[in-house]
Amino acid sequence: MANQPVTTRIVLASRPVGKPVTANFRLERETLRDLDEGEVLLQILYLSLDPYMRGRMDDAKSYAAPVEIGGVMEGGTVARVAKSRNTAFTPGDIVLSHSGWQSHAISDGAGLRKLDPDAAPISTALGILGMPGFTAYAGLRNIARPKAGETLVVAAASGAVGSAVGQIGKIFGARVVGIAGGPDKCRYIHDELGFDAAIDHRADDFQTQLASACPNGIDIYFENVGGHVWSAVFPLLNDFARVPICGLIAHYNEDQSTSRRSDQLPAVMRAILRKSLTIRGFIQREFADQRPDFYREAGKWISEGRLRYKEDIVDGLENAPDAFLGLLEGQNFGKLIVRVAQS
Amino acid sequence: MANQPVTTRIVLASRPVGKPVTANFRLERETLRDLDEGEVLLQILYLSLDPYMRGRMDDAKSYAAPVEIGGVMEGGTVARVAKSRNTAFTPGDIVLSHSGWQSHAISDGAGLRKLDPDAAPISTALGILGMPGFTAYAGLRNIARPKAGETLVVAAASGAVGSAVGQIGKIFGARVVGIAGGPDKCRYIHDELGFDAAIDHRADDFQTQLASACPNGIDIYFENVGGHVWSAVFPLLNDFARVPICGLIAHYNEDQSTSRRSDQLPAVMRAILRKSLTIRGFIQREFADQRPDFYREAGKWISEGRLRYKEDIVDGLENAPDAFLGLLEGQNFGKLIVRVAQS
Repeated sequence: MANQPVTTRIVLASRPVGKPVTANFRLERETLRDLDEGEVLLQILYLSLDPYMRGRMDDAKSYAAPVEIGGVMEGGTVARVAKSRNTAFTPGDIVLSHSGWQSHAISDGAGLRKLDPDAAPISTALGILGMPGFTAYAGLRNIARPKAGETLVVAAASGAVGSAVGQIGKIFGARVVGIAGGPDKCRYIHDELGFDAAIDHRADDFQTQLASACPNGIDIYFENVGGHVWSAVFPLLNDFARVPICGLIAHYNEDQSTSRRSDQLPAVMRAILRKSLTIRGFIQREFADQRPDFYREAGKWISEGRLRYKEDIVDGLENAPDAFLGLLEGQNFGKLIVRVAQS
Repeated sequence: MANQPVTTRIVLASRPVGKPVTANFRLERETLRDLDEGEVLLQILYLSLDPYMRGRMDDAKSYAAPVEIGGVMEGGTVARVAKSRNTAFTPGDIVLSHSGWQSHAISDGAGLRKLDPDAAPISTALGILGMPGFTAYAGLRNIARPKAGETLVVAAASGAVGSAVGQIGKIFGARVVGIAGGPDKCRYIHDELGFDAAIDHRADDFQTQLASACPNGIDIYFENVGGHVWSAVFPLLNDFARVPICGLIAHYNEDQSTSRRSDQLPAVMRAILRKSLTIRGFIQREFADQRPDFYREAGKWISEGRLRYKEDIVDGLENAPDAFLGLLEGQNFGKLIVRVAQS
């Protein structure tokens, strides 16, 4: 039993009330058992940190079960097969897995997808060529359906989903206005990603700037934020505008019982009727059958330089909680990934 | 110039604040001019009264221009051609027109649709075979898209749109739960129209009754009401539920500045995301190219006894304002139509 691998893992210590804090997480170590027939031992190389994980910390009904107290925090990972008793996998294989916030994991092979390290950097399977990139692609192709020249607005525009929405939106023919926090992110999406306009939502005259950047109104608002960005976008929506909703990060930490705003819902419902709006929530896996199209097309766009990406890499699993708390505050710049081990 | 026809018309005297009152309308008489070449004189037989007309009384941005102060109230009508200087029309022809709340009108023929009095009672062109029936058909076919066995809920279920939604929904394979005001309307939709269940929204335990009638949740809520019915339906919506919105009668008389409810919007947005809901406002004319399909299919369903209708006929144009005010309170029973002249 010497050399038995020890996994380091971060578990949910307690459920947050409102904004999560470091004390909601706990680092643990555990010696792993031997592999059974058909299983592989994975060494995690990269862990993706994404806003949806905030939802998993709550004990509320959602499209996915919450993480249990004491359970390993959920998350997408890129791993190397360290040992294999599964004929489909060979030690050294690089795979996409959903192993969560830990250094090692045992898998029966189900749900693993082999990655080709020569085709693209393996970390991109968590970002531009992974769930966030596919969220952008699926929402645009199935719900937003941009027509040439339409105005598309996306918030968190330097982030993993937003940056892909803007660039793929342009490939699909839209005029793209990005909303981001601070001048550096705005400069990046405009100068490096080629967005037609970039607006800083922290500016005092944010709403006025947004209206100026959308002289023909807004045909598509790709919603991944909510909050005051929604309030600024909403009056600018055109007839027949489409609003795919893939995230609401501004609301994830809200204590639902304390809203003091008067009810905005009737005005929103009236506008949905008056303007024939489409508001549509979605999770990318609804469109899973389009993933092969996405891998093919996005790979091509990346190789042509039409689809660019930025990764914000944090070293060390022990730093995942702080990095995640920063993500919820918009402190990351690009797709946030934890390097759990050197590849 | 003897025998020159005089039109009696009801104009918008003033804009309502909140709930409209009789004083917002005024009856006028005017002698009509001679016909020009290409024109016809219409004698209005039936005037349709519909909830959307409340919106035309406001000076607010909408999908249609408001009625001007002093202008004739807008509305769909069935008319007889009394005189014609248009080669396409012969005196005696029965046409669908949009002549508004008046007894006579001059038309250049644009937008008139000839009706066949032998095919169906001509008043049905304002109801089951007209805009309300087509609203139901278009919303079901394009947005709700019921799958066999899905649960469809519709409010104002004995009304012009709701009764068609329920019956066509059943033809499309859904299990249909109707919400109506009072035992008579509930009995009618259940016993005569064949709805699977009927719930009285005035009952104290309305929400409990609705939940009991929808043991598998709600897959489609055809929204034409809003208000407390929406609040009861909303928690019961299933993943991937669709909510076509064609009306919000509960909100039409709301003074938008006085809502004291706390903000319901964040909870609704979160549910749209969590449950992958589709909320979609629409006006039937968006789907105008499907009208021929509708006339053919609905005509067949009526002749087979699968699509039934009830008309609530009020005699005399002078009674239109009171009838309309009653409509906004749910006092009609069936499609509300004013008989302006004997056919």
